[in-house]
Amino acid sequence: MSYALDIGHLLEFADPQERRDEIESLRSLHPADIAEILEESDAEPSQLVKLLALIGNHKAVETFALLSIEIQQECLEASNAQTMLRFVEHMEPDDRVDLLKAVDEDVREAIMPLIAQAERNDIRKLWHYEEGTAGAVMTTEYAMLPQHLTVAAALEKLRLQAPNKETIYYIYITDAERHLIGTISLRDLIMAKPSAGLDVIMETLVISVNHYMEVEEVAAVISKYDLLAVPVVDKENRLVGIVTVDDVLDIIEAESTEDFQRISAVMPFDEEYFKRPLHRLFWSRFTWLAILLFTSLISTTIMELNAGVLNQMVALAFFIPMVMGTCGNAGTQSATMVVRSMALGEIELSDFGRLFRRELVMGLILGLALGLMAYFRVFLQDRNVMLGCIVSTALLATLMTANLIGALLPLVLKKIKLDPALTAGPFIATIIDAVGITIYFEIAFAMMELF
Amino acid sequence: MSYALDIGHLLEFADPQERRDEIESLRSLHPADIAEILEESDAEPSQLVKLLALIGNHKAVETFALLSIEIQQECLEASNAQTMLRFVEHMEPDDRVDLLKAVDEDVREAIMPLIAQAERNDIRKLWHYEEGTAGAVMTTEYAMLPQHLTVAAALEKLRLQAPNKETIYYIYITDAERHLIGTISLRDLIMAKPSAGLDVIMETLVISVNHYMEVEEVAAVISKYDLLAVPVVDKENRLVGIVTVDDVLDIIEAESTEDFQRISAVMPFDEEYFKRPLHRLFWSRFTWLAILLFTSLISTTIMELNAGVLNQMVALAFFIPMVMGTCGNAGTQSATMVVRSMALGEIELSDFGRLFRRELVMGLILGLALGLMAYFRVFLQDRNVMLGCIVSTALLATLMTANLIGALLPLVLKKIKLDPALTAGPFIATIIDAVGITIYFEIAFAMMELF
Repeated sequence: MSYALDIGHLLEFADPQERRDEIESLRSLHPADIAEILEESDAEPSQLVKLLALIGNHKAVETFALLSIEIQQECLEASNAQTMLRFVEHMEPDDRVDLLKAVDEDVREAIMPLIAQAERNDIRKLWHYEEGTAGAVMTTEYAMLPQHLTVAAALEKLRLQAPNKETIYYIYITDAERHLIGTISLRDLIMAKPSAGLDVIMETLVISVNHYMEVEEVAAVISKYDLLAVPVVDKENRLVGIVTVDDVLDIIEAESTEDFQRISAVMPFDEEYFKRPLHRLFWSRFTWLAILLFTSLISTTIMELNAGVLNQMVALAFFIPMVMGTCGNAGTQSATMVVRSMALGEIELSDFGRLFRRELVMGLILGLALGLMAYFRVFLQDRNVMLGCIVSTALLATLMTANLIGALLPLVLKKIKLDPALTAGPFIATIIDAVGITIYFEIAFAMMELF
Repeated sequence: MSYALDIGHLLEFADPQERRDEIESLRSLHPADIAEILEESDAEPSQLVKLLALIGNHKAVETFALLSIEIQQECLEASNAQTMLRFVEHMEPDDRVDLLKAVDEDVREAIMPLIAQAERNDIRKLWHYEEGTAGAVMTTEYAMLPQHLTVAAALEKLRLQAPNKETIYYIYITDAERHLIGTISLRDLIMAKPSAGLDVIMETLVISVNHYMEVEEVAAVISKYDLLAVPVVDKENRLVGIVTVDDVLDIIEAESTEDFQRISAVMPFDEEYFKRPLHRLFWSRFTWLAILLFTSLISTTIMELNAGVLNQMVALAFFIPMVMGTCGNAGTQSATMVVRSMALGEIELSDFGRLFRRELVMGLILGLALGLMAYFRVFLQDRNVMLGCIVSTALLATLMTANLIGALLPLVLKKIKLDPALTAGPFIATIIDAVGITIYFEIAFAMMELF
């Protein structure tokens, strides 16, 4: 759908006919596609605003709402408040607050007084919800009706309210104090007899979330109950907003990107790959790699301290990559499984003991099986029983340790309020390496005394 | 919401009053919650079916539809076809086909003749779509209307059709040959004048997907255009089904779990962590670990071949974990970034050259910076210029190689129709290790000649 558009050329040098054709073909696209084309052009923010003005009001404001917040921010900071007003007023309340939080203070102070009173109140209400909670991603545009109406009257009211509502596919029934007492889907409303009362046909088993619930949990609720939107309530069960399924899709995508980046030790970032300046990409990667390099030097130091053992039996060094690699893999396996299962709610903090016993057994069996394989490899190559025993015993002990660290650390991190996904990252892998190499030499040393 | 329920006790030993109370409290829950409770109980399939019968028809069939396919399959295979008919008939068409594909052939042959003609035709239509495509996850229950109707007539028709439709929030307008020519949201239908013609108010800029499109791409389309459902068409643009957003949420969740498992080299599996039998968990982990162990023995062999060099300078061994670890991390970084960016459509196959140049430069800068750090570490410890030069040059060369392998392999895998996410896995990491250790010794050998 997307194509490259030279906006600078179009605005400055194209002849009127060419410009009209180009604008016409843009206008025929879906706003999401226009937004994608604008994002991929290299135009200045002021040029983007000019182009949007040419596209015509309705498509333009919808397109602006779909641009990334970074580009919206640049546009807002590059143009005067009066020009930008209609774009900002048309945004969804939650996105609007995010944008106003992001822009420079003087830009914000220029545009705020121009915004209509109702929207200003909305902004004030949404401003203080903590980032990452239901309150921060909810919209305040929803259909709310009292229970004493008939279906026919409700439909009439909806027709009046609807133009300002993000979704009318669920109608929320509240009492005089906005307490949420029921819901009706638009589908059920259409199907019901016009004379029926809402209080009779409404669903009173209402699934709702608290405004301070984390967005990941909100996503899980929407997914579990197959909802198009979920109502958000305050501590007194008063309706304060709704979170829609399209927001949830965005949240899940962002979450999963963040997890991937964490696992691979890249500092999280939001821009598309080719758009990220090389020097920022460098720092986001270098920082982690440098930290990891220093951590891995622990292993070097341990080996230096054991230079005597190594000089006696240089063959010990040959099997270090195998032992460390296998244990690192086992630790990553258990960590990733546990992190993922925690995200899906299958493992809770209270499962610590159960998880410990299960992974202790698993580590033992895996260690025995792999240790046996390692023994035969060593023995076949070198006919050296001692080396075989050292390598396989070290593999067993290191693997059990790494496996337990991988399985239990996510719970520990969660307990101390850190992100469990950090466990799957290379930082922990490097620490497991250091622990593993120490165990390796300790066992080698002990066995060499023994034989 | 969930609690432990001893279904065996409830069915066999509980007194009638206790049983009635328990059933009553189950019945007051949302079907998704009842399904969760049943999934977490250890009851036999036949007991689950008995319990569902006690819950009452409507809730029971909805609950059954929300159980995992494994449990549905067990229930179906443990009960007679007549009992299970109403459960199967109430399922969504795509899930029903998946279930019928999963059960034993004799079970399928027992129940198929009992299923109503219309549903049987549905099953036949959906049976042949390839797994993982839009056709395989779409539902055939959607609202379809001809364009010549007025809004009032359309609403009337909808009321008649709706009970059988999964979603009526979009109405699809087709011609006599089912060619998709427009869509109307239920919201717009409600807002329109009753006398208006559908052909006037319908949106003709229709976003649709082909039946052979991969589900990940379908998910991206729904997410990009903020849709609640997307119509699926055949090669002649005839409407054959719709994919709804709740299916997409499930797909994204499953996809992302699979990617995580692939990165961590656990064979993909579907059950919850604690429910997976230990022996199956063992095999899914052991297989990969054993393969990786053998692959890592390539590194051992390379070191054995270079035993001469190592005996001459045992200190070379000390820095192997650092060099290998750092390069493995750099390769994982670039691989994860590229895999993720490909999934988001930011990097295409045609970007190979651009990506190559960018990551070549990135590898060079990272290698120089980290190599310098490594040099000083070696020099400070050992005052050994040669060792320092060997280690830092080897680090530079290995890192550049690993970085490029990580960045480009996902594109190569995609080209030969394999999953790019495999690159981020430890299999490739182990291969990078082997390449890296060869480079390390080659450089050490060359430099020792030189000095």
